[in-house]
Amino acid sequence: MNWDRLWTDVNLACMTDASLGVVRDGAVATKGGRVAWIGRADQLPEADEAGSGACTVLVTRCGGAWMTPGLVDCHTHLVFAGNRADEFRRRLQGESYERIARSGGGILATVRATRAAPLHELAAAAAKRLGDLLAWGVTTVEIKSGYGLDLDTELKMLEAAAAAGADMPVDVMPTLLAAHALPPEYAGRRSAYLDLVIHEILPAAVERGLATGVDVFCEEIAFSAAEARSVLQAGVSAGLRGHVHADQLSDGGGGAMAAEVGARSADHLEHLSQQGVEAMARADVSAVLLPGAAHALGARRMPPVQALRDAGVSMAVATDANPGSSPFTNVGMILNLACTLFGLTPEEALLGVTAAAAKVLGIDADAGVLEVGKRADFALWDVQDLAELCYWVPGRSPLAGLVKDGRPVNGLGTRS
Amino acid sequence: MNWDRLWTDVNLACMTDASLGVVRDGAVATKGGRVAWIGRADQLPEADEAGSGACTVLVTRCGGAWMTPGLVDCHTHLVFAGNRADEFRRRLQGESYERIARSGGGILATVRATRAAPLHELAAAAAKRLGDLLAWGVTTVEIKSGYGLDLDTELKMLEAAAAAGADMPVDVMPTLLAAHALPPEYAGRRSAYLDLVIHEILPAAVERGLATGVDVFCEEIAFSAAEARSVLQAGVSAGLRGHVHADQLSDGGGGAMAAEVGARSADHLEHLSQQGVEAMARADVSAVLLPGAAHALGARRMPPVQALRDAGVSMAVATDANPGSSPFTNVGMILNLACTLFGLTPEEALLGVTAAAAKVLGIDADAGVLEVGKRADFALWDVQDLAELCYWVPGRSPLAGLVKDGRPVNGLGTRS
Repeated sequence: MNWDRLWTDVNLACMTDASLGVVRDGAVATKGGRVAWIGRADQLPEADEAGSGACTVLVTRCGGAWMTPGLVDCHTHLVFAGNRADEFRRRLQGESYERIARSGGGILATVRATRAAPLHELAAAAAKRLGDLLAWGVTTVEIKSGYGLDLDTELKMLEAAAAAGADMPVDVMPTLLAAHALPPEYAGRRSAYLDLVIHEILPAAVERGLATGVDVFCEEIAFSAAEARSVLQAGVSAGLRGHVHADQLSDGGGGAMAAEVGARSADHLEHLSQQGVEAMARADVSAVLLPGAAHALGARRMPPVQALRDAGVSMAVATDANPGSSPFTNVGMILNLACTLFGLTPEEALLGVTAAAAKVLGIDADAGVLEVGKRADFALWDVQDLAELCYWVPGRSPLAGLVKDGRPVNGLGTRS
Repeated sequence: MNWDRLWTDVNLACMTDASLGVVRDGAVATKGGRVAWIGRADQLPEADEAGSGACTVLVTRCGGAWMTPGLVDCHTHLVFAGNRADEFRRRLQGESYERIARSGGGILATVRATRAAPLHELAAAAAKRLGDLLAWGVTTVEIKSGYGLDLDTELKMLEAAAAAGADMPVDVMPTLLAAHALPPEYAGRRSAYLDLVIHEILPAAVERGLATGVDVFCEEIAFSAAEARSVLQAGVSAGLRGHVHADQLSDGGGGAMAAEVGARSADHLEHLSQQGVEAMARADVSAVLLPGAAHALGARRMPPVQALRDAGVSMAVATDANPGSSPFTNVGMILNLACTLFGLTPEEALLGVTAAAAKVLGIDADAGVLEVGKRADFALWDVQDLAELCYWVPGRSPLAGLVKDGRPVNGLGTRS
């Protein structure tokens, strides 16, 4: 019984085998930041069974709380400068996202502000947003660049993402999204910008170890499937996780293209075709569903959830936290929207922010489930029924405690 | 300059004259729990102008935060027992709210649990939810009964509402909603139940001083306009504020009826007719818009906001926090939905939870605006632009501080 810590009086949702994997009256032991034992409390090994002398185990009684794996937010744009409250007003007056983008607003407004901001300011602003996610049980966060669109700013954003999480109990996984939009100085010179991305920005990010993933915005207002493919292929060849912003505003064949190049996920997918669903299923590409963006943009069309379900495509859910199309770091609201807007069941939504999200990031060997050998990243919840996390959106997070790498995080939990 | 306290380095949104009433670089002084001076900081009277010897003023520098009046949540059902996460699952599977109600679920499921719960449990559960609202800057909350549907439980709920707020820095305004649904033991005896409400429950609540308002659910699945009128007339005659759950699921003439009986508000209004709009405008009945319910029920039809605006009807916004049709105590999400779902401007939404909501509760002489003589109930916000409160839904409330009756509330604010 060589354990560091033990959690008892807890109900477990292990998220194993594509189900909640509920164990009532459970217990979890950790050793060296990993799960060492997990199961029903009445099956806990006795001290003498494990033998070998005295040892000290710190025991935390959880008062009947629910425990899930620490949540994984697998699609965010947490690093940015500026504020787009004004664009929110314009959209309420009926202006479309596309039109605002074409008139220099949208992504490009944030690009201007982000280029001008020093790294420490970007990191501080992102750390505040990270704090919001931690308060909602998130222990792993993917963060994309993409508001730089030049070598220096893209690298600055990736550095800011890492810096934001450096002193926080969270794993940050930075993704290069240099192909988020065509920067204004490259107007009419699309292939020159793609060359810059593929031959300068991407190699620099890889060489300095600043990115673990690559992403492309494949959409009429951004890059075509052919353009996106070239960037993704270069990134995936360099050993990065591949992701695509696909089929959000129109059917651009992004889902199918993600399958072709061996990307891990295709994200958004409101306009994904049946052909795209099948291609994703065949290539085991995950769907990342982003209900915050569908809500904020007033999408009329929702992702083909039933078709994805029927085809056995793994479905993750993420905040897509960003200043334009998904200005939300409230995970509870995102879970609620995943159910009410997209028709996921509460179980699917919860798997979407744990096991399925870990799969998207290629960290399913370490995170997203409660299982022996996995990282001891736990979220404890002050709810009676886990479906409450999707159903009731409270003014304060229902987090009752957070554990990262086997260590309780102070100052979080019990409606802090 | 006979002041107790002074707040400086603050931007004010006074909510006067049906606008945000912005004063940048403002200051507010209080005396005896009321606003004693408010205006631009550079116009603050000098100490010697006010003369008369030494005095001590506690000064709080707000670091450039925004100050609004403490928010007023003018329509909630915060007191209840039980949990309807399971009904959430059923609705996701396509069952309608009406059908669940007719099968003994919905309101009646909560009635069974609430009848069985002791007062102290109801109060404790409501206090937790009140804490959620306080974290979002709410200093006045209306709380309805309506899950008792018998004399004892209706009174117990009103007592629980008062008890929940007794030790918290919030004003609770309890409303009798005995005519929320026909209790099962009165099936087929509608008029007998209405007699009970009008001749026993209502007089008992008034006599004991437990309610300051009366409300009725006027809807096909609840009470007809004629039935609702009889309850409202009795309540209003007894000196209570009158409110109607009106025209939510169908056009039942509730808005027009509210105008007829001199109710202060008609609430929900998704199916309000143009005739209803005009009747409300003539009688100065406020509209209470409840976007949480429209969202949770997947409403296809939204309240006629443009018609209400054109007719000059005052529009309040409230959480409608309840376990079935609006399981939300997150004011930020409600403000966001008010804009994105109902098409309110951020300014209208913010007026909706301050000045317009105070008017609904008949406390506009005291609350909902920042003005000399009004209660010193203030919410301080960590935002650059007040529209952010409607646009970005954060994982933690952006409240930077809360002041009730001139006293700072400890432990709230700065992302607590």
